[in-house]
Amino acid sequence: MRTQNFGVTFCGGSTGQWRIRSQIAVTGQALPDAEFLSVSEQASQQSVWTLTGFASNLRYTGALDREALKDRSEGLGRPAARHAALIPIRKSDAWWAMAQDERLAVFGRARHTPIGMDYLPAIARKLYHSRDLAEPFDFLTWFEFAAEDEPAFDHMLERLRNSEEWQYVTHEVDIRLSRHEI
Amino acid sequence: MRTQNFGVTFCGGSTGQWRIRSQIAVTGQALPDAEFLSVSEQASQQSVWTLTGFASNLRYTGALDREALKDRSEGLGRPAARHAALIPIRKSDAWWAMAQDERLAVFGRARHTPIGMDYLPAIARKLYHSRDLAEPFDFLTWFEFAAEDEPAFDHMLERLRNSEEWQYVTHEVDIRLSRHEI
Repeated sequence: MRTQNFGVTFCGGSTGQWRIRSQIAVTGQALPDAEFLSVSEQASQQSVWTLTGFASNLRYTGALDREALKDRSEGLGRPAARHAALIPIRKSDAWWAMAQDERLAVFGRARHTPIGMDYLPAIARKLYHSRDLAEPFDFLTWFEFAAEDEPAFDHMLERLRNSEEWQYVTHEVDIRLSRHEI
Repeated sequence: MRTQNFGVTFCGGSTGQWRIRSQIAVTGQALPDAEFLSVSEQASQQSVWTLTGFASNLRYTGALDREALKDRSEGLGRPAARHAALIPIRKSDAWWAMAQDERLAVFGRARHTPIGMDYLPAIARKLYHSRDLAEPFDFLTWFEFAAEDEPAFDHMLERLRNSEEWQYVTHEVDIRLSRHEI
């Protein structure tokens, strides 16, 4: 298999651009403890754990939401966004056995997109897919925000985790980070 | 990156379970000539070309169609299905820039699922995704059928290739095969 052009590897270990502030196992097992996180296109030799994913085309977002998201979103790498979160998620076999319209209906009833939109542009987000690489998680979602927006981020997660969609989440880890000055 | 549990590798070369009867470059470049095709989970050393993909969850099929397809479909590996086809396809950037609802609308107007359904159970089909592996093609579709059903298969392809969806196809190769008795 060829290396992906748009793949990303998150490595927990002793080096990296991000310092791991905390890790909470929301559902299921925690990852092994690590002090730093490196984000790159290649796995690091000294890593304690490695998670790989790829950016892809939109799977649920419709055209209207795509335009609204584009209008309100700011990119990753903003100087003021000193905090970040990596949230790996795995969903159940029941989720993946559903047809596209069935999954889209749950996604819609959970108000997944409108909830995320409520926190734009403060909470920047990028989704990576892992499931088709036979990785332990299905999704790796990366968030960046200013330290003072962390309570808003927590509020967003609380709303999502109380939704019908999260009944299909069988494994979720919440890793909080801050930029590591060298 | 871990090896995929459900990945497949098609290798054109000097050995394999299938003999390549013909290759037509429908749109874009042909693949290098090869006499045999091997289908496995690992790349073969002596291959002339290699294409890798993974089976995944349904991306467009709704629940009603999923049930209708399940009722009418027969699996791969039927003894009478001595012929096969491998059709790698790449779609344009315009296709991939569309939101889910826009792609689904084209897929629906093209009558992609009903056309395929017209040829069940004679034409068995399995779809593999390649795009997210940064492969040269986006999809690798594998078909198996009896030799006498090849005209029906050709008819199905003609209908699909005349559809709106195929206006987004920028590269398509049509490889016909027969089981190789050892």
